[in-house]
Amino acid sequence: MKTVVWESLSQVQQDSILKRPAMQDGASITAAISNVIEQVKADGDKALFSLTEQFDRIKPESIRVASQDIEQASQRLSSRMKDALEQAYSNISKFHTAQKPQPIKVETQPGVVCEQVSRPIQRVGLYIPGGSAPLPSTVLMLGVPAKIAGCRKVVLCSPPPIADEILYVAKLCGIDEVYNVGGGQAIAAMAYGTETVSKVDKIFGPGNAYVTEAKRQVSNDFRGASIDMPAGPSEVLVIADESADADFIAADLLSQAEHGPDSQVVLVTPSPIIADQVTDAIRRQLTDLPRAEIAEQALASSLVIIAESLTQAVSISNYYGPEHLIVQTKNPRELLPLLDNAGSIFLGDWSPESAGDYASGTNHVLPTYGYTRTHSSLGLSDFSKRMTVQELSAEGLKNLAPTVITMAEAEGLDAHKRAVTIRVEKLKSKG
Amino acid sequence: MKTVVWESLSQVQQDSILKRPAMQDGASITAAISNVIEQVKADGDKALFSLTEQFDRIKPESIRVASQDIEQASQRLSSRMKDALEQAYSNISKFHTAQKPQPIKVETQPGVVCEQVSRPIQRVGLYIPGGSAPLPSTVLMLGVPAKIAGCRKVVLCSPPPIADEILYVAKLCGIDEVYNVGGGQAIAAMAYGTETVSKVDKIFGPGNAYVTEAKRQVSNDFRGASIDMPAGPSEVLVIADESADADFIAADLLSQAEHGPDSQVVLVTPSPIIADQVTDAIRRQLTDLPRAEIAEQALASSLVIIAESLTQAVSISNYYGPEHLIVQTKNPRELLPLLDNAGSIFLGDWSPESAGDYASGTNHVLPTYGYTRTHSSLGLSDFSKRMTVQELSAEGLKNLAPTVITMAEAEGLDAHKRAVTIRVEKLKSKG
Ligand SMILES: [Zn+2]
Ligand SMILES: [Zn+2]
Repeated sequence: MKTVVWESLSQVQQDSILKRPAMQDGASITAAISNVIEQVKADGDKALFSLTEQFDRIKPESIRVASQDIEQASQRLSSRMKDALEQAYSNISKFHTAQKPQPIKVETQPGVVCEQVSRPIQRVGLYIPGGSAPLPSTVLMLGVPAKIAGCRKVVLCSPPPIADEILYVAKLCGIDEVYNVGGGQAIAAMAYGTETVSKVDKIFGPGNAYVTEAKRQVSNDFRGASIDMPAGPSEVLVIADESADADFIAADLLSQAEHGPDSQVVLVTPSPIIADQVTDAIRRQLTDLPRAEIAEQALASSLVIIAESLTQAVSISNYYGPEHLIVQTKNPRELLPLLDNAGSIFLGDWSPESAGDYASGTNHVLPTYGYTRTHSSLGLSDFSKRMTVQELSAEGLKNLAPTVITMAEAEGLDAHKRAVTIRVEKLKSKG
Repeated sequence: MKTVVWESLSQVQQDSILKRPAMQDGASITAAISNVIEQVKADGDKALFSLTEQFDRIKPESIRVASQDIEQASQRLSSRMKDALEQAYSNISKFHTAQKPQPIKVETQPGVVCEQVSRPIQRVGLYIPGGSAPLPSTVLMLGVPAKIAGCRKVVLCSPPPIADEILYVAKLCGIDEVYNVGGGQAIAAMAYGTETVSKVDKIFGPGNAYVTEAKRQVSNDFRGASIDMPAGPSEVLVIADESADADFIAADLLSQAEHGPDSQVVLVTPSPIIADQVTDAIRRQLTDLPRAEIAEQALASSLVIIAESLTQAVSISNYYGPEHLIVQTKNPRELLPLLDNAGSIFLGDWSPESAGDYASGTNHVLPTYGYTRTHSSLGLSDFSKRMTVQELSAEGLKNLAPTVITMAEAEGLDAHKRAVTIRVEKLKSKG
């Protein structure tokens, strides 16, 4: 890790040191994915079988996972694992249930009532990556809010063979259909539908560069599907003062670093002593980490920033806008009102990032890559949409008429004006 | 307008009749806009001056509108106009203030507290199109929620010369800076900043195909800016039964049609009599409409659908997912729980679309083009973002530890596990 003293840097250096690296040039990925999407649109299930054989080197018996396979997965899991998944399920359910929107109703002027109501997105698709280890936690983060929001159809795609943990959580969340499909072909199948895979309205979930590109392409087509949020490498920023425990910080930075070689890891502290201690602790903890090689690659481009004060540390964090923000200071809650541009915030010594990754109840699908400036932590509202309603009484329309007429005149929209005058005249003629 | 009987159509015909036309092929627009963006990024203000001269055939004295010009605009407006704009401002303020989110705090299990908090998006840019008539209503729809959300910097771009009504509303909404820039160059300037134009985090507002393409391009660049929502032609669908007033419906359909030749206008009714009456009324009302030519073009591709029942009419509406949905039936509120996939809903005889366009209090920036399936009516929440927070007590972490440890093991993330065990061990050693 590189250590810098913030105040010793010029503004240009400060800017550039916190700049995220541009993502790899995607021209070849763009073409490959556009080809995959065309194949799935043209050949449906047949394309899914052949692409799965080509990319995953596996020939699943069927695209849809049979319900008895899901039952059997559950029987194979240890009760320790099931207990853990159920506890996480319970916490995530509680926090997302608390996010249910209240309908809003306001009489803005006499006889003019405006409302805001919410409706679930009807059909949603969840993408769960495959790879060396299964990601049941991501199934929870997507499946729980989809169900609480009341989405009518919830489907899940994951590259085969799908791990028992994933199938178990899919059942726990009441997911309607699970498909043995991964990669860009899974995104295409959910965006456009095939004989077996249901078309959905919105696609959620993480993935590699191919999945991300497929999500981008289908979301740029109005006949495709919407997506949850733009994707980038995972990130953590820790704000710590001299009261912090360097071992805890090191463990948190390493849990971020082990996610992937492109993980972004930043420590900001006014304490040079803590900076040194953390650097040492990381070196110690790295020695027996199974994913040490990955973590070391991430750490190579990571940063320790010595700030002048906690206030400056907060400014640096707000400027960077990390996905995960851990605050290990004497009074972490004091800083909360000042914190901005973060996905999820972890307050105090006993709130490691892994608690939120798995089971505290918050969602681990978070904006990255600086999108915290404009995007939200995934929540219940991403699985529904708001509509407004207005109902005017005859009296209400009469009251509002002069305003609408005057503005329609200003905007040169005569039919808009007439939609009001024709009604007001009818009211007059009725007496 | 073409009249069809829904039940007489095959399912393929039903699908195809409600399909939106694909938007024009944009290859030339894409290249032109990408060139404009490059110019603005490279040459800043200089590019803005030359592009404005090229496209708007006008040479503004300065890019930023001086505050005395804004003052003078206000003096030139009639008090009737100012009253109307202020009444609309007041209603829109009331409805959007009611949308302020409540912070959420839940103890998901003993010692594990999860919260959801909201922060304004810091810097937002509003785009207001120019053209034959000014659009002060759009300034209200964007400026009011930006201010209520607490955005720190709110800027506005519009092609010069900017109408007095727009400058007046900009002042009313407390917009910080107004710029004499339109088109793709305005979007580029707000996304990347120039010497004069402030860079913003998110851009809002309607525009022509060039503006839409510029918004798409800057939102695909993580160093650009986010945008409000995808854009498409404006739409209305009216559900009416035999109790409806055909003149009112005709006036509403025409106010949609006059927006532009690509406006989508649909009437769905179980009553063939109403269908006939509305067709007649449209013909009558068209005769003295200033924008009759535009409206006629829109009506040429418009539809009257005879449904079997109101229930079927609702299904057709939900399937189409109109931007504006007007319900003129005997008991419109009875249908509300069944209505889905709409931007804004207008209930009853006295709620014309123009009320919501201007002044009822609801926002007139709405999803179009079928995006109502997944996107919301613009609201206060589009000007802010949600972050989650978690704070575990030592006891809370001990309670949650087995769950996190078990799941981290399943996912093969050892450092994640260790971030918990290292803390639990420290607690044990402390006794
Ligand atoms: Zn993690
Ligand atoms: Zn309108």
